[in-house]
Amino acid sequence: MFSKKAITVLFSVFLFTGVSGQNITAELQKLKMVFTLNKGGVPVYSVSYDQKPIIQQSTLGFILANNDNFYSNFEILGSEKKSIDETWKPVWGEVNEIRNHYGQVTVHLKQVGTNRLLDIVFRVFADGVGFRYEFPKQPAVKYFIVTDELTQFNLTGDHKAFWIPGDYETNEYPYATSKLSEIDNEELVEKSTAIAVRVAPDRYAVQTPLMLKTDDGLYINIHEAALVNYSAMQLHVNDSTYQLSARLVPDALGNKAYLHASFHTPWRTIIVSNKAEDILASKMILNLNDPSAIKNTSWIKPMKFVGVWWEMQTGKGTWSYSDYPDSADAHGKPIPNGRHSANTANVKRYIDFASKNGIKGLLVEGWNTGWEDWFGNWKENVFDFVTPYPDFDVKEISNYAKAKGVEMIMHNETSAFATNYERQMDTAFRFMNQFGHKAVKTGYVGKIIPRGEHHDGQWMVNHYLRSIEKAASYHVMIDIHEPVRPTGLQRTWPNFLACEAARGNEYNAFSDGNAPEHETILPFTRLMGGPMDYTPGIFKLRNYTADKTRRVHTTLAKQLALYVTLYSPLQMAADLPENYEAHMDAFQFIKDVPVDWDDTKILAAEPGDYIAIARKGKESNNWFLGAITDENARQLTADLSFLDKNRQYTATNYADAADADWKTNPEAYTIKKMVVNSTTHLLLKLAPGGGAAVSIVPR
Amino acid sequence: MFSKKAITVLFSVFLFTGVSGQNITAELQKLKMVFTLNKGGVPVYSVSYDQKPIIQQSTLGFILANNDNFYSNFEILGSEKKSIDETWKPVWGEVNEIRNHYGQVTVHLKQVGTNRLLDIVFRVFADGVGFRYEFPKQPAVKYFIVTDELTQFNLTGDHKAFWIPGDYETNEYPYATSKLSEIDNEELVEKSTAIAVRVAPDRYAVQTPLMLKTDDGLYINIHEAALVNYSAMQLHVNDSTYQLSARLVPDALGNKAYLHASFHTPWRTIIVSNKAEDILASKMILNLNDPSAIKNTSWIKPMKFVGVWWEMQTGKGTWSYSDYPDSADAHGKPIPNGRHSANTANVKRYIDFASKNGIKGLLVEGWNTGWEDWFGNWKENVFDFVTPYPDFDVKEISNYAKAKGVEMIMHNETSAFATNYERQMDTAFRFMNQFGHKAVKTGYVGKIIPRGEHHDGQWMVNHYLRSIEKAASYHVMIDIHEPVRPTGLQRTWPNFLACEAARGNEYNAFSDGNAPEHETILPFTRLMGGPMDYTPGIFKLRNYTADKTRRVHTTLAKQLALYVTLYSPLQMAADLPENYEAHMDAFQFIKDVPVDWDDTKILAAEPGDYIAIARKGKESNNWFLGAITDENARQLTADLSFLDKNRQYTATNYADAADADWKTNPEAYTIKKMVVNSTTHLLLKLAPGGGAAVSIVPR
Repeated sequence: MFSKKAITVLFSVFLFTGVSGQNITAELQKLKMVFTLNKGGVPVYSVSYDQKPIIQQSTLGFILANNDNFYSNFEILGSEKKSIDETWKPVWGEVNEIRNHYGQVTVHLKQVGTNRLLDIVFRVFADGVGFRYEFPKQPAVKYFIVTDELTQFNLTGDHKAFWIPGDYETNEYPYATSKLSEIDNEELVEKSTAIAVRVAPDRYAVQTPLMLKTDDGLYINIHEAALVNYSAMQLHVNDSTYQLSARLVPDALGNKAYLHASFHTPWRTIIVSNKAEDILASKMILNLNDPSAIKNTSWIKPMKFVGVWWEMQTGKGTWSYSDYPDSADAHGKPIPNGRHSANTANVKRYIDFASKNGIKGLLVEGWNTGWEDWFGNWKENVFDFVTPYPDFDVKEISNYAKAKGVEMIMHNETSAFATNYERQMDTAFRFMNQFGHKAVKTGYVGKIIPRGEHHDGQWMVNHYLRSIEKAASYHVMIDIHEPVRPTGLQRTWPNFLACEAARGNEYNAFSDGNAPEHETILPFTRLMGGPMDYTPGIFKLRNYTADKTRRVHTTLAKQLALYVTLYSPLQMAADLPENYEAHMDAFQFIKDVPVDWDDTKILAAEPGDYIAIARKGKESNNWFLGAITDENARQLTADLSFLDKNRQYTATNYADAADADWKTNPEAYTIKKMVVNSTTHLLLKLAPGGGAAVSIVPR
Repeated sequence: MFSKKAITVLFSVFLFTGVSGQNITAELQKLKMVFTLNKGGVPVYSVSYDQKPIIQQSTLGFILANNDNFYSNFEILGSEKKSIDETWKPVWGEVNEIRNHYGQVTVHLKQVGTNRLLDIVFRVFADGVGFRYEFPKQPAVKYFIVTDELTQFNLTGDHKAFWIPGDYETNEYPYATSKLSEIDNEELVEKSTAIAVRVAPDRYAVQTPLMLKTDDGLYINIHEAALVNYSAMQLHVNDSTYQLSARLVPDALGNKAYLHASFHTPWRTIIVSNKAEDILASKMILNLNDPSAIKNTSWIKPMKFVGVWWEMQTGKGTWSYSDYPDSADAHGKPIPNGRHSANTANVKRYIDFASKNGIKGLLVEGWNTGWEDWFGNWKENVFDFVTPYPDFDVKEISNYAKAKGVEMIMHNETSAFATNYERQMDTAFRFMNQFGHKAVKTGYVGKIIPRGEHHDGQWMVNHYLRSIEKAASYHVMIDIHEPVRPTGLQRTWPNFLACEAARGNEYNAFSDGNAPEHETILPFTRLMGGPMDYTPGIFKLRNYTADKTRRVHTTLAKQLALYVTLYSPLQMAADLPENYEAHMDAFQFIKDVPVDWDDTKILAAEPGDYIAIARKGKESNNWFLGAITDENARQLTADLSFLDKNRQYTATNYADAADADWKTNPEAYTIKKMVVNSTTHLLLKLAPGGGAAVSIVPR
């Protein structure tokens, strides 16, 4: 799916040896990067936007195993520049065509004394800078181990930051908003007991994508792109200098990466704009990933799905068939608890619902044996991925779903026992092929085996990618829960539809939940790397569990708006059929909203406050608009000038009722139709914790 | 293969609660075990032989994770006794029937305060004691982690010990012989540079089986049986108290085992006799293992084999096809080095040799891509186990071997990257089935991945067993190189024909080699746990490598004798065809000697000095006698009274020539025939480093 529409290559080579101290620059429009060596021969770079410094001189380099200095005594051997301007078409996404326009400079370095070579490649886009390290094939560097990557981001002030703790195992924290100088994750880690496994040894470390806002209104996003065969980068924050420094997630032995030259690291990315909307519109991270590795992508199809899932999250049913492990009746058969949700009759009920409402997919969790004793024991063999519980008739269900036009989504919870899953992966995917599952949701809840490895370390990063590649080889789409956060790899592996790696809607089921601002921060942070399986669409927002304090911290209209504001090619309609059946007029929006788009307009956005986005359906003239707010009521005026000129549309506005409020009256909504056109300025009134979802269809 | 010929069960239960301090005993013939609780409620046991103390009061117990005391404050809830006397038939082995006769006592303990239960089971045989810990299913102990096992063996004096260092990664050290008080492995570990990976953090720790001899002539062997889902036990030696204490091999985090009750540990074994011969004859370790888990064993067939192997060990050829990784000629093809041994023509030469001489199997190493860069880089993906080098025509070779009646033995070197092998195991075994390989030699040279795990830790112990089970499921026999040392599991998994886990003949190719006494110690140590693929049968004992100091430290006749003294159902004829062709008269013994036996007589044995064994071929009346000595010339008189009465036999004695000497004249042998019967006393004259091999066939 790579189309070269226009490529301009300006190629120039400067070769000079033994000279250091000179500046090497790359720039495009308002962005400029300057590279140089400081007097110790340490590589440093800086970035400015519209002539304002964004990143002050910051070091680059490594410490390799055995405290081996690979960060100073460098000299510049030369550098090369080129520029690229091309467009390409994603297999699916927010837009149907993406421009990839950058100026690149490759700096060739040699370490004096060791004669080791290191290249650093910078790409400067209109909306940011990406750079990576490249270790060329060379006699002096073959196999090597990274002890530390010394990349810094020296910020210019005490910016406002939207952050979660730098935890080796999880991204499922609620977001904190504070000055850089106030970042301290200790309390947040300690009180986040709803997250099963938390390992955050550095209280001043945060995850990326890190969203920042400067006092003078610049938005800066720091992350990485194309994380392959390397551990995830976290950022240590210095509270007085505002220096961020890379912290790679270690393995069991404290090492960060085992490498073999030639090798290149992931891209370190800095996206900058004076408009928050531009951050959300940026395609820089996708552009820094490789084109699709899958040639025939015809089997990859975005979809919506329902699931036998929320009823277990809310305690109506159970994943497990029995109430305790190894139960056995007089005949040696396991003793049913009578509350097992993944039973044939109940699954058929969901199939009927999906079929009737044109929802393509159905996820069923708890279908396979092992759930009596699956969590928290760090044992290696939990699930086999092919053995159903006695009340789950896999053949009957498969046939029934097929007859009703519904695609079953397989569920493979690994309990984080990656070694076990790798042993059984082929068997699991053959099973999916056999029974016609075209997608799988995998999960990694718990402490990792191999023991001592972390969710975000190199070994697991490679494991997730192996699972994606394996899925691709069986023509199966994949949705990974509890992995490392994404870095744009969905471009290269478009069967990697979505992942979790953040705090999803589910936290409203089993914890204090997500603050009303949560979904206004996610697109600026976690979603910068790729789509999330957030599981929106909860209609029954209170009294869904035995614990009456549990609630969803949004209005119903906001749940609808999330289908537009939280982009994913895989979107769940997460609530129970009976809860949808009580509001079929509102459910109409979920039925109508696409999961693949030809165009996207970020209408308004401010992290932590509000987001409004309009999107045009794939090969369609229908537009869908979603607007959400935080805990504050808000009015937004949407300029519909993106609509075709001279065309009239029917807008259906699924809005908060006048008296709606996430706290007191969350399920109050109104549905109003009106005629609009490209000159319309549509007033959207958002309740506290509210939102609006609008379909705009040509008349 | 389990036949109950005679079972006597004397079952008695003593139930008394809250009583401690009483002795619980079990005894059989000369062996007696006494269990009691000391005054802190710590379980202790002692063992005596013929009323002489062998093991003085020694503690039993555990420290669990978080420094959790599970070794004191116990009370005895009760105990049960039973005795068993049965016989069973091994699928293959040194004898065709094994008697399993023991008295058993199970002690039921409860820890006061925690209410946790622990059972300790003792089995007392005529030739030793085995005991293990059992964690019953119970509310107070479910999943648990062992930090330390506190088992002690308090010896009664400064015995002579035959030992190798307690290394987490390897058993390939030369044996040291010293007093217990003199054990210090540091120098031996340091100088053993021919062993690639050595991790021996405790300089006073040794591997088991540990062979001991007391000043008053008792022989004691300490090891373990049925090592499953637990880490290997090493022994820390106290040089003043002569206390041995268990040291389990840790994982990456320092933990020893992750367990789930009900669970039982391996058996800790103490074999005792006043005759060294009885140690070698003991079947206690086999008796402590479970019967065969494989029902249909008809496909399991012991065999001899030749191999494309010694020529690489000695530098005549190479495992690799090219001389460096990623070589490429003008057409992008790898550049052959011209010395690649596993080429179709050379392999056919070996097939011809095997076929002509009735050797059933042929191992070929270096057949698959990856050998240019396979070792020492701790990278995960080295071999794929199915891609041959361009000069190895797998189909042609398979067909040729089949036509010639030779079975190809697959070779899967994993480079110790167990995770990679587990991912590919099914593919590898399907390949073996496809091309008719009925056996596989696996290998684990290098540092383990998962990184931080050790060759002898719980995870790898489980991995080896998974490979054995996987092989069984494909009807493939397995020979594992560089695994944990064996513990009798070949009884339960008779497709597990042999393993290495010791210093093999190969060390004579690439190091200073093995001392003349080496093979007189192996049967008392490493072989107590199971057969070894030692690769005997080297005929060209000098000048086989470019380094002229390399040599085999035996005579040629001793190489023949090893086929009898080092029992294995899988025996290699390790030398090159051309070296055998120079001595076809001597090679006749290798052609004749079986690998499976109906009976075995240990005629004479002293660890470190000499061994003489006679064995009767399976379903045959032919006997084969092997006698070996250390660096000293020796005369042994073999009493042939085991022969059938009133029957005459032709004995063919492959003996050292009168002037033979491993140092000066190793290849000098004589072959003499004579008539013998059950009254014959056969004088065997062994040269320094020499031996004798005798076939005794009814006339």
